[in-house]
Amino acid sequence: MEFSEYFPIWDQLTPGQRETLSGSLVSRSVKNGAVLHGGGRDCTGLLLVKSGQLRAFILSREGREVTLYRLFDRDLCLFSASCIMRSIQFDVTIAAEKDTELWVISAEAYKELMEQSAAAANYTNEIMAARFSEVMWLIEQVMWNSMDRRVAAFLLEEAAIEGANRLSITHETIANHLGTHREVVTRMLRYLQGEGMVRLSRGTVELLDVKKLSALRDA
Amino acid sequence: MEFSEYFPIWDQLTPGQRETLSGSLVSRSVKNGAVLHGGGRDCTGLLLVKSGQLRAFILSREGREVTLYRLFDRDLCLFSASCIMRSIQFDVTIAAEKDTELWVISAEAYKELMEQSAAAANYTNEIMAARFSEVMWLIEQVMWNSMDRRVAAFLLEEAAIEGANRLSITHETIANHLGTHREVVTRMLRYLQGEGMVRLSRGTVELLDVKKLSALRDA
Repeated sequence: MEFSEYFPIWDQLTPGQRETLSGSLVSRSVKNGAVLHGGGRDCTGLLLVKSGQLRAFILSREGREVTLYRLFDRDLCLFSASCIMRSIQFDVTIAAEKDTELWVISAEAYKELMEQSAAAANYTNEIMAARFSEVMWLIEQVMWNSMDRRVAAFLLEEAAIEGANRLSITHETIANHLGTHREVVTRMLRYLQGEGMVRLSRGTVELLDVKKLSALRDA
Repeated sequence: MEFSEYFPIWDQLTPGQRETLSGSLVSRSVKNGAVLHGGGRDCTGLLLVKSGQLRAFILSREGREVTLYRLFDRDLCLFSASCIMRSIQFDVTIAAEKDTELWVISAEAYKELMEQSAAAANYTNEIMAARFSEVMWLIEQVMWNSMDRRVAAFLLEEAAIEGANRLSITHETIANHLGTHREVVTRMLRYLQGEGMVRLSRGTVELLDVKKLSALRDA
């Protein structure tokens, strides 16, 4: 597949803009676990996912993590290129959660494009608004929802992403997604197991009763 | 003061764009406490503050609040006009925290402007990135910081906004800013009073030791 098929406003660019953008691309293949952007203010460039899965998260000083959102096929990551806007005053870390193929778009070329093209600037706006919406969902989860509901929501989301009810995931990893401690997750999972909603075994969590988990999440 | 002096990219607009924008403005004066945007997906329009102070917050189903950010003189509020972008999938409530003079810009006119003008679209991008940064700060506070540090940070911020160390504010109001319960705030304030950092009296909190409060916030 060509870059043009992954970039929805390609048709609205001038030939010169297309050429500049194409010339700024670098193709990369990364393995599951690779850190693509280290959370600093350095300008890695924008990441456009061809195939695979990336995770955006923040880190506390003590090394705790919380997942902000995931990026899938055709998603564009702006915050690995925070130099494109001076008002982006926060750091996110971007890591591959699956083996991933992507393009890196030069931040400089993209910034130039946004300044020239209202279509590109508005496209960027929509992407930022979409990420903003995901972060607002997270705030609502953290502020108003108890941890049992958050664990249920996380398991259901993972099952949807993986297309499977048997998840290979450790309690530690779940804790890193949710920004809590492993012990808290273990306690919640045991509670869910006691209620017949999941079955736990070494390194896996199996969803037994999706309906009941959904009811808990939406309670 | 004229609208043009409050709108930084005025000089980059065409005469026609200026005319459309000017024609879409409505001046409003609202009293402290007035709700300007009710949190639904309705399109109130963009709010540009001439003078005063607005608060953007979210509400839980149970009526709990948490403050996302404040808007001061010259600040522009996008999220009261979420129809300008389809990816804005969350609701905020906007209320006046002081008597406020503002312009309401029609969402339709603004959307048209963004589509025509890269300068307007990029200006909007910067505003959204600035709000996003404030919300990310909030997430970090909520995820990693204990409530004593959050109360200290809030009191210091209020004192900076008011330019005074004696704040007329109830424990209930502080709880609504921070998304917690009044009892939690009362307990924290009593702890801070015990440490000599604040003095409490009916309806007021006085900051006695800004240095110690700052050290707690930054601990």
